[in-house]
Amino acid sequence: MPTLVSLDGRLVPPEQALVPVLDRGFLYGDSVYEVVRTYRGTLFEPGKHLARLQRSAALIGLALPPLPDIEAEARRTMAAAGNPESYVRIIVTRGQGTFGLSPHLSDERRLVVIVRPLELPPPELYERGLRLAIVGIRRNPPRALDPSAKTGNYLNSVLALGQAKKMGADDAILLDLVGRVTELSTSNVFFVKGGIVVTPALALGLLDGVTRGIVMELARGQGLYVQEAFHGPEALAAADEVFVTSTIREVMPCTQIVFAGEPEPRLVGGGAPGPVAKALRAAFAGYVEKRLGGA
Amino acid sequence: MPTLVSLDGRLVPPEQALVPVLDRGFLYGDSVYEVVRTYRGTLFEPGKHLARLQRSAALIGLALPPLPDIEAEARRTMAAAGNPESYVRIIVTRGQGTFGLSPHLSDERRLVVIVRPLELPPPELYERGLRLAIVGIRRNPPRALDPSAKTGNYLNSVLALGQAKKMGADDAILLDLVGRVTELSTSNVFFVKGGIVVTPALALGLLDGVTRGIVMELARGQGLYVQEAFHGPEALAAADEVFVTSTIREVMPCTQIVFAGEPEPRLVGGGAPGPVAKALRAAFAGYVEKRLGGA
Repeated sequence: MPTLVSLDGRLVPPEQALVPVLDRGFLYGDSVYEVVRTYRGTLFEPGKHLARLQRSAALIGLALPPLPDIEAEARRTMAAAGNPESYVRIIVTRGQGTFGLSPHLSDERRLVVIVRPLELPPPELYERGLRLAIVGIRRNPPRALDPSAKTGNYLNSVLALGQAKKMGADDAILLDLVGRVTELSTSNVFFVKGGIVVTPALALGLLDGVTRGIVMELARGQGLYVQEAFHGPEALAAADEVFVTSTIREVMPCTQIVFAGEPEPRLVGGGAPGPVAKALRAAFAGYVEKRLGGA
Repeated sequence: MPTLVSLDGRLVPPEQALVPVLDRGFLYGDSVYEVVRTYRGTLFEPGKHLARLQRSAALIGLALPPLPDIEAEARRTMAAAGNPESYVRIIVTRGQGTFGLSPHLSDERRLVVIVRPLELPPPELYERGLRLAIVGIRRNPPRALDPSAKTGNYLNSVLALGQAKKMGADDAILLDLVGRVTELSTSNVFFVKGGIVVTPALALGLLDGVTRGIVMELARGQGLYVQEAFHGPEALAAADEVFVTSTIREVMPCTQIVFAGEPEPRLVGGGAPGPVAKALRAAFAGYVEKRLGGA
């Protein structure tokens, strides 16, 4: 059973995994979610992901079921699906309630866990590096819809990614409204300049990535100076290295950046992955091993 | 059968109106929608609503089914539901496709029509007028997610309305990021000052309301000067009259505005509905009659 879904505790195959059209998750995207993955069949950093789910829920005023219950349901679904490695998407919607826009109209909630076989990026992508495009769509500003909350309102990223694909790129770099680099559609971004590792500051309005946080710690552990800062896209293009982090991509280099209106992508670090990304990817693998060992 | 749903052409009661959790409408809010209502059982301005659905779809790169097919399905569902007056919500999602964020992964689409008995605001609300709150949440800026598209990404309005309710108000007034009045959670707003009718300009990033457009024409037809402009919330509070427009509210006065941190709401026009709103509401009723008569 490659894909299996838990619907409020009922395990069903995907073709039977149905929710009411009157659920607020479907009508308004009134939901929060997390994606957790496994290594050797074990959920990686479930505590960090669930803590973030809690923060997302708090930002939209949604009362979650107890986190241990959510985690138990994720584990149960995963076990029943029986994949060697799992992609686990946890979604909590504000349920159905009385028809209408106000969030007070529902004190229900709906827990959906989607378990799929883990699909990883092709290994050669770590060798050639990502091609990223600076898209015209800007990241949602925190005062309108806080990008630090992972919600069912994901059109901003969907449209950015669509625009990047049209520009011949693998993913989008979203700037904020005044032109500062924030993040990709579902990954954080880092660059290295003169030995300093730089990543956009959370204050800009971006996701506090689990992998981002781990990689910052690992870089510091390697004696690197890590800075959270505000920079425009030119700083990325002029960097010695650029790399991105996410649960699925771990640490992946970016070697090309597409700017709108320019005939060719700009090459980062001469177009080849750099040593810092490579070292941090190895360090991340070591960190995973340590966590699996319970250290 | 008070509520009836058409799911890709299949008519079902709401408890059987289910969509896959893997539908992009549920996962990402990757959908567009319209709400149309009836007068004396007849759909009001379906052409204007469908044209806007088309514009919304174009803004997110979604290919709609032919508009006449959508309209026919709305009529068929309405007829089968058999309510004297109907609320008709038309939703088109990007369907399921291959799992993943990129919009190119799906060339499917799903048409959902929800028909419910029309629920109107209590008549006394037109006598006392709305109490509106200037909320802290700001309207999505067009460069991030264009508010002129009606999409399944509705958290911005959901959260604004929730904040307004907490402030003891009926609805929220959302400002843009630099503090200019845009619109309510699902209504447009007008004010009258010195005989001039003013409404926020579309360039601010707000919905091009069907009722808004009709009311602007009706006001001009009454010899009033109508201006689309940029104003802060102080201009609303200092106006002779404030009123709002929407498909469901038609033309409804606002008599109180709540500002955060102030002990009492500010009264608009001395706290009583004004003559322009009253005249435009009557003119709107006349317009509806004319349209029903086929004029």
